[in-house]
Amino acid sequence: MDKLFVIKIGGNIIDDELKLSSFLKSFAALKANKILVHGGGKLASRLAEKLAIKQQLVDGRRITDAATLNVVTMVYAGSVNKTIVAQLQANNCNALGLSGADGNIIKAHKRTNAAIDYGFVGDVDLINVSLLQTFLVNSITPILAPITHDSNGQLLNTNADTIAQEVAKALSKLYQVQLIYSFEKSGVLTDVNDESSVISIINQLNYQNLKSTQKIFAGMIPKLDNAFSALNNGVQKVIIGKAEHLQELIEGKSGTTIIHE
Amino acid sequence: MDKLFVIKIGGNIIDDELKLSSFLKSFAALKANKILVHGGGKLASRLAEKLAIKQQLVDGRRITDAATLNVVTMVYAGSVNKTIVAQLQANNCNALGLSGADGNIIKAHKRTNAAIDYGFVGDVDLINVSLLQTFLVNSITPILAPITHDSNGQLLNTNADTIAQEVAKALSKLYQVQLIYSFEKSGVLTDVNDESSVISIINQLNYQNLKSTQKIFAGMIPKLDNAFSALNNGVQKVIIGKAEHLQELIEGKSGTTIIHE
Repeated sequence: MDKLFVIKIGGNIIDDELKLSSFLKSFAALKANKILVHGGGKLASRLAEKLAIKQQLVDGRRITDAATLNVVTMVYAGSVNKTIVAQLQANNCNALGLSGADGNIIKAHKRTNAAIDYGFVGDVDLINVSLLQTFLVNSITPILAPITHDSNGQLLNTNADTIAQEVAKALSKLYQVQLIYSFEKSGVLTDVNDESSVISIINQLNYQNLKSTQKIFAGMIPKLDNAFSALNNGVQKVIIGKAEHLQELIEGKSGTTIIHE
Repeated sequence: MDKLFVIKIGGNIIDDELKLSSFLKSFAALKANKILVHGGGKLASRLAEKLAIKQQLVDGRRITDAATLNVVTMVYAGSVNKTIVAQLQANNCNALGLSGADGNIIKAHKRTNAAIDYGFVGDVDLINVSLLQTFLVNSITPILAPITHDSNGQLLNTNADTIAQEVAKALSKLYQVQLIYSFEKSGVLTDVNDESSVISIINQLNYQNLKSTQKIFAGMIPKLDNAFSALNNGVQKVIIGKAEHLQELIEGKSGTTIIHE
C-alpha cells in the first residue's frame, strides 16, 4: 500500500500569516500522497464580533446558530480555504479545496444532544473514500475545510480534528496512513510551560502510566484518546507537534509519535 | 461529441432564496453534462457595508481592494458556493464547488489599466480543460465561483459572465457546448419594460439591424457581443433567459437563442 499523510493544521498557525506561509511551503515540498485539514482559528470569532453576532460557548464548544454557520462557512470554506489553496498552487502543489458538501466528500448529521443544543454542528457519518482516492491518483491534494453537509441541503460546522481522524481512518483501507496534528506546541509535553519536555513516543503501555501519574496536561487527553482510536482503526501512526517542523515530524525527529505498541 | 451546458446564474436569483432553490431543482434535474457559474449578487455589497468597507464603483465595476477581495472570497467561494453545492447534493446532483485556484481550474492575471486601477481584479488566461473533463466523466458537476488566481498566490475577483464564456469556449474543443445566461429577465427584449417583447432568435444578420435601429437595450450590447465572440470560438449556441425557465430555455421554447447564422 502507498503512504498517505493526513495533516491537520491548527488554528493558531492559520492566524499567523508568516507561520502559515512557512508551513505551506514545507507541506507543498512533501513528495507523497497528502491531505490537509484546516480549522479557522480566531478569524471566525473576529468576523462574528464585527458583525455583532453573539458567540455562545458551552464547555469551549461554539454553539452554531444560523448566523454563525454563515460566518464559519464564509471564513473556513471561503477565505481560509482559498488563501491556503492559492498559496499551495504558488508552491507547485496542485491543491483543491473542499467542504464536505463538495463531491459529497463528508456526509454528517446534525448533533442531537438532550442536554445542549449545539445548533448546526455536524457529526461525521461517511467519508467519500473513492473521490479522495481519485484526487490523489491524479496528483491533486485535497484541502478540507471543517464544514460538512447532511445530504438534505444543510451545511454543518464540524470539528477539524475529528474530520482529520475520520479521513485518516477511512483511507487506511487503501493507504498506509500517518495522521499528523500540527500546531503551535512542540508535541505532548510533561510540563506544559516547557517546550523541551516533549514525550517522544507514547504507546498504549506508557500512556496508562502517563495518565495515572498525571504527567500529561488534561487538555491533551481527548486528543490522545482520539489518536488511539485512530490507531485501533487502521491508522499506522499519529504524530503531534510543531507546524514549523513538518519535515522533522514526519522523520520522527521532532514531536510526539503515538503508536499502538 | 457529447453535449455540455455551461450555465451562468445571475446575481438577482442568488439573492432570492425561493427563486434560487427552484432554479437549482431544475438544474439538478437536467440530465446532461453541465457546469454552473454563479455570481454573488448583492450579498457581497451588503457584507462590505456591514463591515464598513467602502465600495468604490467605476462605470459600474467594483474596485477590489484587499479588504473587498476578502469579502468577495468569503461570499462567492464561501457562503454562496457552498449553499448552492449543498442544495444540489440534496437534489441528487453530485456538485463540487471550485474557485479558479482549486485544481488550478482558472488561471488569470491582475488587470492592468493605465487609466483605472481596478485592484485585485483578474482577466482569464487559461481554463484547466482536462480537470473539468475529469469531473464530468466522473458525473461530478463543477460549480464555479467568480474568483480566480494568478499562480503566484494571489486570488482575483473575476466577472462571472466572462468565466462562463471562457469555460464554454475552452470546452468547445471536447463538447458541443451550449452557453446559457439565466437571470431575472425573459431574454433579450425590444422593450425593456415589456417582458413579452422577447426576441426569440438573434443571428449575426439581424443583430446588426437590431443594433442600428436601436431595438436592443444598450446594456445588452456587451452581453451580445460576448455571445457572438463565444460563437466565433466554437460554442454552438448561446441562450439568454429567465432562470425559472431553464428547461424551456434549453428546449428553445423560452428566452433568446443566439446563433451564428
